Amino acid sequence: MTLTAAAIAAHLSALLGADAVIGTPEQMGNYLNEPRKRFHTGATAVALPSSVSQVQAIVRWANENGVGLIPQGGNTGLVGAQVPLRGDEVIVSLTRLDRIRAIDTSAGTMTAEAGVILENAHTAAEAENTIFPLWLASQGSARIGGLLSSNAGGVNVLAYGNARELTMGVEAVLADGRLYQGLNALKKDNTGYDLRDLLVGAEGTLGIITAATLKIFPKPEDYETTIVNIAGPEAALPLFELLRARIGGRLNAFEIIPHIGLELQLKHGFLDRDPTAGPSPWYALIEVSRMAGTAPGALQAAIEVAFEQGLIDNAVFAEALADRTRMWAFREQMSEVQSKEGASIKHDVSVPIAAVPQLIAQGIAAAERVCPGIRPVPFGHMGDGNIHFNFSQPAGADARTFMADYDETVHDAIYDIVLRLGGSVSAEHGIGQLKRELLVQVKDPVALDMMRAIKTALDPKGILNPGKMLRTCP
Amino acid sequence: MTLTAAAIAAHLSALLGADAVIGTPEQMGNYLNEPRKRFHTGATAVALPSSVSQVQAIVRWANENGVGLIPQGGNTGLVGAQVPLRGDEVIVSLTRLDRIRAIDTSAGTMTAEAGVILENAHTAAEAENTIFPLWLASQGSARIGGLLSSNAGGVNVLAYGNARELTMGVEAVLADGRLYQGLNALKKDNTGYDLRDLLVGAEGTLGIITAATLKIFPKPEDYETTIVNIAGPEAALPLFELLRARIGGRLNAFEIIPHIGLELQLKHGFLDRDPTAGPSPWYALIEVSRMAGTAPGALQAAIEVAFEQGLIDNAVFAEALADRTRMWAFREQMSEVQSKEGASIKHDVSVPIAAVPQLIAQGIAAAERVCPGIRPVPFGHMGDGNIHFNFSQPAGADARTFMADYDETVHDAIYDIVLRLGGSVSAEHGIGQLKRELLVQVKDPVALDMMRAIKTALDPKGILNPGKMLRTCP
Repeated sequence: MTLTAAAIAAHLSALLGADAVIGTPEQMGNYLNEPRKRFHTGATAVALPSSVSQVQAIVRWANENGVGLIPQGGNTGLVGAQVPLRGDEVIVSLTRLDRIRAIDTSAGTMTAEAGVILENAHTAAEAENTIFPLWLASQGSARIGGLLSSNAGGVNVLAYGNARELTMGVEAVLADGRLYQGLNALKKDNTGYDLRDLLVGAEGTLGIITAATLKIFPKPEDYETTIVNIAGPEAALPLFELLRARIGGRLNAFEIIPHIGLELQLKHGFLDRDPTAGPSPWYALIEVSRMAGTAPGALQAAIEVAFEQGLIDNAVFAEALADRTRMWAFREQMSEVQSKEGASIKHDVSVPIAAVPQLIAQGIAAAERVCPGIRPVPFGHMGDGNIHFNFSQPAGADARTFMADYDETVHDAIYDIVLRLGGSVSAEHGIGQLKRELLVQVKDPVALDMMRAIKTALDPKGILNPGKMLRTCP
Repeated sequence: MTLTAAAIAAHLSALLGADAVIGTPEQMGNYLNEPRKRFHTGATAVALPSSVSQVQAIVRWANENGVGLIPQGGNTGLVGAQVPLRGDEVIVSLTRLDRIRAIDTSAGTMTAEAGVILENAHTAAEAENTIFPLWLASQGSARIGGLLSSNAGGVNVLAYGNARELTMGVEAVLADGRLYQGLNALKKDNTGYDLRDLLVGAEGTLGIITAATLKIFPKPEDYETTIVNIAGPEAALPLFELLRARIGGRLNAFEIIPHIGLELQLKHGFLDRDPTAGPSPWYALIEVSRMAGTAPGALQAAIEVAFEQGLIDNAVFAEALADRTRMWAFREQMSEVQSKEGASIKHDVSVPIAAVPQLIAQGIAAAERVCPGIRPVPFGHMGDGNIHFNFSQPAGADARTFMADYDETVHDAIYDIVLRLGGSVSAEHGIGQLKRELLVQVKDPVALDMMRAIKTALDPKGILNPGKMLRTCP
């Protein structure tokens, strides 16, 4: 028996109180409108639990009544994992679980609830002279639960790892409403299967993360930041290797950006002035952290060696904080500035680092064959092999026609190259509903079967984020 | 219908050839005798496949016939995961799968088969001027498959992580004989559940790992190594924090050793000379790596600050390679030297780093209450919160009586303290058969249910390492 929307809202109100349930579509906007504006299905209700036991109560009720639940954090996901697919789901917003439960600098841990906004986690860590080194463009809205469920990456993965590597333990409500109490602050614990890493990155399909023990790190004394001029991705590779050999784990970021990125940002007034040393086909933004009591200049010395070896043409170092901020704005605004130039076709892909130059060269050539005049804007985390391989429409083209004509064919061309290079069709953003069919085409069928078996074992009624990542079994 | 031992050997010989099957108990010694000498059950046969497809053939056959399989690498495990429990199992030795399939320094990866001996992986990495930074006492015998299946730790976890963190992808034969092709060299791949980390540390109960893509790192130009004299674990904690803040990711090792460890090694001739700066209640062995092109002296400078702050009393730095080797021998021989002093009761436990001093103080007091005269020898990875909390029998006591009288009560006392401090009863060595009953007592029952559900989903007939980690369901 399927419950009506009114009955669902009434049940939820009885469980949580009326002020914790939104049942009218007009009031659901914040929970439905997602950043890519691709998904437009409504929800039956939005539930706003304010405690872990309320989350448990919702899940228990949903499991008994066969109601699909969509866990949601800051609603910043880019693949539609956090918004409805069928229209009969209830969104469970974790925004009210926003306490930082504990912070322990000598253990190097922070325990934060799912609804804590990333920027607030940063502030809390910095107040203790530490850092929580997950940094990404949406940090003012993205929340811990969603960041972990999507195994978010960002600009500092090189030195500190992605969300999974920054997580020591998780607490999660399972499909039957029981609480998995996996919070811990242990660097080593070999007492059973790695359930933490299974829940992290599961996009809410195996459990609803309610809190996590996160790693925090000593705050570096300073950063050394540079933008260097390079001929292209081929030159970036030996430069990266040189830096990795000399600087090791203190190399925080190695991002590449093509000249068009600078051009567009200057054109649209995104930068108060040019943060580079002058025009170049490509730029690399490189940052190193300097620990307390160590001498500055490690990056400068390495860059001089790179210059002598002919790997770079020019470089500019951040002198003041304003310079560093501008350099990072240049990188962070890459995605946003593209929206000023009409439609974009985007790919969040990764390949083994050594294959990045091939990926970019072959990808540009293939897209230009499919759509002459298309403007390639590949940029991003060279040091992780992760390129946001975006294309802006040809200047002056009609946005809608461009997408209708080329979205699919450009995707096919790029994914084909990525797979031939041993890469991933979703490096950072996940699967959600956007890449669900793509996943079936490209993933090892044995891996898909393992995933389905695990999903069925842990959520036999299929109530947790149904149909996301994996098609729901009937 | 249960197959006879003869029938099993015959089946296996038909699949693999007679030279790949050991069916006579007298010839199985190397595969049955494990380092702790605690487990003495025989096996039906030992199978020695020499290819992945032979492993698949064995598993397919075992699944059809309900035969339990025990994957085994170097047979160095300390909890009996790699040796028989019931007596009707077949040991599948991966020793013949010993190829290093590929090494790619610019991607920072090595693809090694399960049977590669750790020391050979070290040599292969070093030939390319890189390191594979998993170092532990048994590295001359331990093999990649077993190291990954037990999520091995070792002395460099602080800087480089444990086996799980050093693994980029795995290839494994699943219970139905199909091959999970999860080898990849991607730093970022968000296309589904984290199956890699589920297989790593699963002790062969979810699949048989046949190969892995491992992370290799640029070889540091040099190491700075010191042994400092400290008053006790309380002083080690602020010293560790000071070093972590100044040296960050280049801090490779921070190991603590009590004076009795030095005393015993000198007494039994384990050291050619004293590697310390003079007698002290406790010592800390600290190592930092120096990357190419950076100035030496970071450790020395930090140690001087620690001395000024009164955290340490004295220090000696390794001048030559022989000094460094001797310092590490002092640490690595800790376990072995205890066997010269009769019986030992051992615990491989971890707590949040800040709780290490409490763990050691409370643990020593509790054990001395249980067994007056017992000699505490707690040592190990302070920087990971992981202490090998060992006790030697009172001098002159009868070994057998000591173990009979105190093994269980000392265990109970130590585990009780570990759990109250939020710790783990198996930090490095795993569960196997040794800690299976303990696991049921101490682990979150919800987590145990999740583990059982996953085990049943992926190995419905229970043929993979039956009864290890989790009691076999009937």
